[in-house]
Amino acid sequence: MADIENAQHIDIHALEEMLESGVSRPVRRQLNSLSGADCAHLLTSLPQRQRNLLWPLIDEELKPEVLAHLPEDIRQYYIAHMDADELAELIEELDTDDLADLLQELPEAITQQVLQSLEDEDRQRVEQVMAFEEDSAGGLMNTDVISVRPTHTLDVVLRYLRRFDELPPMTDSLMVVNRQEDFIGVLPLSRILISDPELSVRELMDTDIEAIPADMPSHEVAELFARDDLVSAPVVDIHGKLLGRITIDDAVDVMRDEADHSLLASVGLDEEEDTFAPARKAAKGRAIWLGINLITAFIASAVIGLFDATIEKVVALAILMPVVASMGGIAGSQTLTLIIRGMALGQINPGNASWLLRREVVVSLLNGVLWALVIAAVAVAWFKDPTIGIVIGAAIVINLLAAALAGALIPQILKKMDIDPALAGGVILTTVTDVVGFMAFLGLATLFYA
Amino acid sequence: MADIENAQHIDIHALEEMLESGVSRPVRRQLNSLSGADCAHLLTSLPQRQRNLLWPLIDEELKPEVLAHLPEDIRQYYIAHMDADELAELIEELDTDDLADLLQELPEAITQQVLQSLEDEDRQRVEQVMAFEEDSAGGLMNTDVISVRPTHTLDVVLRYLRRFDELPPMTDSLMVVNRQEDFIGVLPLSRILISDPELSVRELMDTDIEAIPADMPSHEVAELFARDDLVSAPVVDIHGKLLGRITIDDAVDVMRDEADHSLLASVGLDEEEDTFAPARKAAKGRAIWLGINLITAFIASAVIGLFDATIEKVVALAILMPVVASMGGIAGSQTLTLIIRGMALGQINPGNASWLLRREVVVSLLNGVLWALVIAAVAVAWFKDPTIGIVIGAAIVINLLAAALAGALIPQILKKMDIDPALAGGVILTTVTDVVGFMAFLGLATLFYA
Repeated sequence: MADIENAQHIDIHALEEMLESGVSRPVRRQLNSLSGADCAHLLTSLPQRQRNLLWPLIDEELKPEVLAHLPEDIRQYYIAHMDADELAELIEELDTDDLADLLQELPEAITQQVLQSLEDEDRQRVEQVMAFEEDSAGGLMNTDVISVRPTHTLDVVLRYLRRFDELPPMTDSLMVVNRQEDFIGVLPLSRILISDPELSVRELMDTDIEAIPADMPSHEVAELFARDDLVSAPVVDIHGKLLGRITIDDAVDVMRDEADHSLLASVGLDEEEDTFAPARKAAKGRAIWLGINLITAFIASAVIGLFDATIEKVVALAILMPVVASMGGIAGSQTLTLIIRGMALGQINPGNASWLLRREVVVSLLNGVLWALVIAAVAVAWFKDPTIGIVIGAAIVINLLAAALAGALIPQILKKMDIDPALAGGVILTTVTDVVGFMAFLGLATLFYA
Repeated sequence: MADIENAQHIDIHALEEMLESGVSRPVRRQLNSLSGADCAHLLTSLPQRQRNLLWPLIDEELKPEVLAHLPEDIRQYYIAHMDADELAELIEELDTDDLADLLQELPEAITQQVLQSLEDEDRQRVEQVMAFEEDSAGGLMNTDVISVRPTHTLDVVLRYLRRFDELPPMTDSLMVVNRQEDFIGVLPLSRILISDPELSVRELMDTDIEAIPADMPSHEVAELFARDDLVSAPVVDIHGKLLGRITIDDAVDVMRDEADHSLLASVGLDEEEDTFAPARKAAKGRAIWLGINLITAFIASAVIGLFDATIEKVVALAILMPVVASMGGIAGSQTLTLIIRGMALGQINPGNASWLLRREVVVSLLNGVLWALVIAAVAVAWFKDPTIGIVIGAAIVINLLAAALAGALIPQILKKMDIDPALAGGVILTTVTDVVGFMAFLGLATLFYA
């Protein structure tokens, strides 16, 4: 039988046969014994056809959790097939921030319908989060904060806490606010447990915690959580009023999305890309990227075309062309990747960028000369022609220099122009190293063999 | 003045001038007002020369924290310059897992000396963690666990907790163990706070928490934390005995290292790569990668060399060669990246791998035919030669098919051979698409133009 509890070993053919022959009960039982996250992971690991066979078998109570854990692409597919009532019922159980995200993906009319169906207090909370950009601290926060006053004693706090059935998930500390709801500090749960109940909140709270402004971009929030080992952090408005809190699980999601993005954008894929998207949809997404890169390739061809007479005379040039282009491309992408990562980690700033550029130039000279000698030696031995050695050696040095400059400068220029370096950097770099490489190699050859 | 509190805007030239003219006091004051993490970030964002000027200004109490947050490469540089006594003093303040990691980087003799200088209890803890692979759950765990018995009442637990000055960082729950120290469940701090003190631990604990086996690979641990939104989790030996706990900050470090690795390995860089490494060191690291890729480039050249007579006859072939190679490379790396990511997320298994391979083949056929038509049309218009259109069109379709097969199969084969797909996948793929592309394009041309 298909053991769906372990997505690592699920056999989609066995599963399909079982479902199509009408044996759904054992599948349904196993499916609904999973956590929402595991169930979402299972669906994500299946082609759409099998996904659609499983979806109706998931209990209505489990669906909100599953939806919250699905990648945006897949989630939208299922949401699009629900009416507003179903949706309202489904999403009542979601965290405020997840709910706000989800609503932002829906058509405006449906969003309004869902909001109307919520209770007043819930609606206000969701609307508050939706007022912020999805990729800002405000868009990441939850409003389920437990706050206390500095003047209270621990004893009062403890009695207050005992009125809860449970604390909001990932509550590691209570927020301390004054009468104006301004954030003053945090009171860690662990501190409450080890302290004398007679002491006041003021005596025990941490005030050296920096509150996160609601407009901080989400990648900076994630950096902050990682650097300061936070579990939760307060979010405040520009006046210092406490709005909500961000928890580490949301910061982790941001980190994973960012990592996914850096990896996938460089080959023109979306970080929400469904690994098991149907062929037609996948082909469409990738076609555009192939088209963009085709332009780069034709530019390279046009450069080669300028030197067709030389190539006709010395066919060895055509044979060695890939070496010049490839070495430039590889060296350039090393620099590019290092710089993009450095920028993402906040390590690169105007003060050290010129140092880095100089360092990259020196590195490319060192490696350029080393590999130019090796390549020249191979070329001379291969074609029994010293001239080709000089030409290709010089072209390699020139192209590696161009690669270093392009790799270091392109991401910084793109960032200033507000274009994502992870997406566009590689294509532009390849264009530069192809054009410079072929131009130098074939141009020098035209001079030497004239 | 150089404002070092904000690494985003630090001016390394101003800083250098200040330090070299002997004005170190304001720098020292600012430096030591930073957290260990921020101080490490600042050092990481500086070239080695400036780094070495700042290092002696850091207070001895701050150094352990700074060391713990530095990337391995940079950390080793500073550790190598300390004697065992200094080291022992420095690392007393580190978490067990950080300390164990650090010790594993040192020469055996120094490690032993440091271990001897620790107190008995500390030494035992560190040795216990060091007994596990660094990249396993055992190597990630801390042994600073607070455990309680199921028979105790909350009241007893509360009195026990009040004896602590503080709880270990990121303690969100107590571990419940029996007399044999076997893990039974967890008792969240939040549950302690909201519950009646008369109740027993057994009545309140969560038993549906899965303990992590000490030999679980660290990337699986990270996946588990991300999927189940954990803050801390128990680690047990094969008999179920509680060994320690892993906290989310360690899981986050693993995630960031993995993300860094997928990004950097594809261009032959190490995830511990120091962005500001000196030129000579950086050049050395990258030279090897250029050399490996040079072999690929020469293989491509050799393939072209087989057809030199055809190229001499039809120089348009030399001009269009980059288009065939580039389209294959781009399409292949899209498939490769998608598969490597799917494998990292645990989405790909023997049950769905063949579905994915078929999907990739269909995608490459769709895009192959589309772009073959476009490219053929451009080639025919450019060179006024219908034959070149047929030849390049067919070569594109063939190469995109090869790219899909290579992109989907290479990572799975490499994984079976225990070779890192992120590191070797791209080079092998390029070799395949270059060889197949040139072979198909120039081979067909040789037939058609014979």
